[in-house]
Amino acid sequence: MKTNKNYNNLVPNYLFAEIAKRTNNFLKENPDKSLIKLGIGDVTLPLAPVVVEAMKKGADDLGKKETFKGYPDYEGYEFLRQAISDYYKGFGVDVSADEVFVSDGAKSDCGNIGDIFSADNTVLVTDPVYPVYVDSNIMAGRKIVYAASNQENGFAAMPDENVKADIIYLCSPNNPTGSAYTYDQLKEWVDYANKNDAVILYDAAYEAFITEDLPRSIYAIEGAKSCAIEFCSLSKTAGFTGTRCGYTIIPKELERDGENLHALWYRRQATKFNGVSWPVQCAAAAVFSEEGQKQIKENIAYYQENAKIISSALDELGIYYTGGKNSPYIWLKCPNNMGSWEFFDFLLNEANVVGTPGEGFGQNGEGYFRLTSFGDRENTIEAVRRIKELLKK
Amino acid sequence: MKTNKNYNNLVPNYLFAEIAKRTNNFLKENPDKSLIKLGIGDVTLPLAPVVVEAMKKGADDLGKKETFKGYPDYEGYEFLRQAISDYYKGFGVDVSADEVFVSDGAKSDCGNIGDIFSADNTVLVTDPVYPVYVDSNIMAGRKIVYAASNQENGFAAMPDENVKADIIYLCSPNNPTGSAYTYDQLKEWVDYANKNDAVILYDAAYEAFITEDLPRSIYAIEGAKSCAIEFCSLSKTAGFTGTRCGYTIIPKELERDGENLHALWYRRQATKFNGVSWPVQCAAAAVFSEEGQKQIKENIAYYQENAKIISSALDELGIYYTGGKNSPYIWLKCPNNMGSWEFFDFLLNEANVVGTPGEGFGQNGEGYFRLTSFGDRENTIEAVRRIKELLKK
Repeated sequence: MKTNKNYNNLVPNYLFAEIAKRTNNFLKENPDKSLIKLGIGDVTLPLAPVVVEAMKKGADDLGKKETFKGYPDYEGYEFLRQAISDYYKGFGVDVSADEVFVSDGAKSDCGNIGDIFSADNTVLVTDPVYPVYVDSNIMAGRKIVYAASNQENGFAAMPDENVKADIIYLCSPNNPTGSAYTYDQLKEWVDYANKNDAVILYDAAYEAFITEDLPRSIYAIEGAKSCAIEFCSLSKTAGFTGTRCGYTIIPKELERDGENLHALWYRRQATKFNGVSWPVQCAAAAVFSEEGQKQIKENIAYYQENAKIISSALDELGIYYTGGKNSPYIWLKCPNNMGSWEFFDFLLNEANVVGTPGEGFGQNGEGYFRLTSFGDRENTIEAVRRIKELLKK
Repeated sequence: MKTNKNYNNLVPNYLFAEIAKRTNNFLKENPDKSLIKLGIGDVTLPLAPVVVEAMKKGADDLGKKETFKGYPDYEGYEFLRQAISDYYKGFGVDVSADEVFVSDGAKSDCGNIGDIFSADNTVLVTDPVYPVYVDSNIMAGRKIVYAASNQENGFAAMPDENVKADIIYLCSPNNPTGSAYTYDQLKEWVDYANKNDAVILYDAAYEAFITEDLPRSIYAIEGAKSCAIEFCSLSKTAGFTGTRCGYTIIPKELERDGENLHALWYRRQATKFNGVSWPVQCAAAAVFSEEGQKQIKENIAYYQENAKIISSALDELGIYYTGGKNSPYIWLKCPNNMGSWEFFDFLLNEANVVGTPGEGFGQNGEGYFRLTSFGDRENTIEAVRRIKELLKK
């Protein structure tokens, strides 16, 4: 019996383990210090009340014979797929309910989507990058090429006609850099993909944080339906990190290599997935209700205000950054040409603030640093006060 | 860009679509007839009250900042893994909490487990077979060999030293045949796997239906920890088909091809999965509580009584069958040497009862038929009355 030896090509990522180690060491040596963590990529506000109520009603349904639900549809219940379709309509993008697949999260889909593609494809990722895109393709034995996101392009890598890629992962607004593509920029990627017979795998997990006139879906771009699959998630939109629900959109017309990709994914999901929990689908549908949208927008506004507090301080300090405006992430250049880990230690020791070294997301992250807006208001204000005090010295 | 062409090797399975078509045609022509469906593989009784309460409490947790839960552990919360470990202890099998991976269902895991194995392995399945084992491996491009389950071996295929297999799927009690391996029979499979460097993928989804002295886990067999992975599910145990929770056990000591399979699967799940919903894990833990066990056993007893009503009738009619005793399924030989579909039509037209033609589960299923005990008591009694009346003629 042979195991999958591609796993041996994975580079162990010790980013969060190393952060935890250095943080714990610091706390052991400085038990009296109050540490503030702005490194976390997880939400902290509770679910909206209307969402909790819908989930509890879903649970009650399961407890009564007349309303009990057995195996769900593989692609999600029609009422939820229709609610997602209507949500897209709300910002002017046409996605029909039967193009939507509901799942237990965008991460699962981002990883599993590779099942419908041959191992013999070249995958392009932008660097710095969310590690799942890289690792899931290394596991499948695919070749990976990197497009540099850096200060010159505002951490928004653009296509290069001289690079041949078959599968392209784009994340906008980006994790970790917070940069968001414009309509014109995304159009370049869509044109590249259509011209080069490539497929774009578009991760829109942070679309709800967009405040300016930027595309919230790749399908806002002409030509995207013939080249792009979109992943989205309720994790950051509605605090679903612990609730688990996302969705993937595959246009009915999307074909490659003589195959219909929507049909291939349906077959994949029907064979290796069994749908999403009834109370979770009820909760997800509540997110898209009128009251749900009102309530989740209050939470998003709270995080956005945190982001503004952080980015205003960086403006004041004259530090280069991306994100903050259309993203919960603030990606900053480490001051005084410090390295990512050097700045991590400096901030930890001198301001007792924990962030994430950019180098952990790829080689173009070296010298950069990620702060997030998912913390408490009070802690965010205090952390920013300390950072300003430290860096103004 | 190249798609995964292995998908073209999938044989479309029209079993349930064909059943629906014939049933709907019958109803159109006979709108006054009252049809009873004993073909369904889905549960019908509601979740136990203690499970619903735990799920609602979990939902409430998510609605309050102090108890809110973000990203879960990839492998499931420790309290649930410990509860599963204790459950195994209850029938004398030693599985430690850190050998358990909680997931959204056994079907996902049965399909996704292939990620850690090379495409270059030979997969053995028993025939008739749950189609997921076959299709997920065809998708990965693996060679499949079939071990015949038939009347001679009581629909419990045994290993053949002349057949070389690397990955072996066993399901006991079996879907669709209801047969359950004895300790001695499973020992033969374990010995074969250890001797041939193979891995057994053991599906224990129906273990809660075992009433006789038969193994409820492959780890009840000496030597299994060095050759077997076990999948289990709360779908049939506790009516979780619409709630979605299962678990996979990989012994820490299980190694093949120089790799630790537990570590490979952890890496797979950490990359392509993000854990199970908090309220669902709370509900699952409640299943394993003292009160939970009492309540779910009442539901199982209800289905078991249905199974007894069906199998007693077959005894009376002198019809050969497997299952019924340690399984919710009753797998019977079609009377008068009828073919599976011939008997389906006969039963539909003459008794207005719907079952599942065995031929849909593989070539050894031809001439056999599956009935399930997941229906109403009243309907089960009436269906059996009609079948007896028809076949006594």
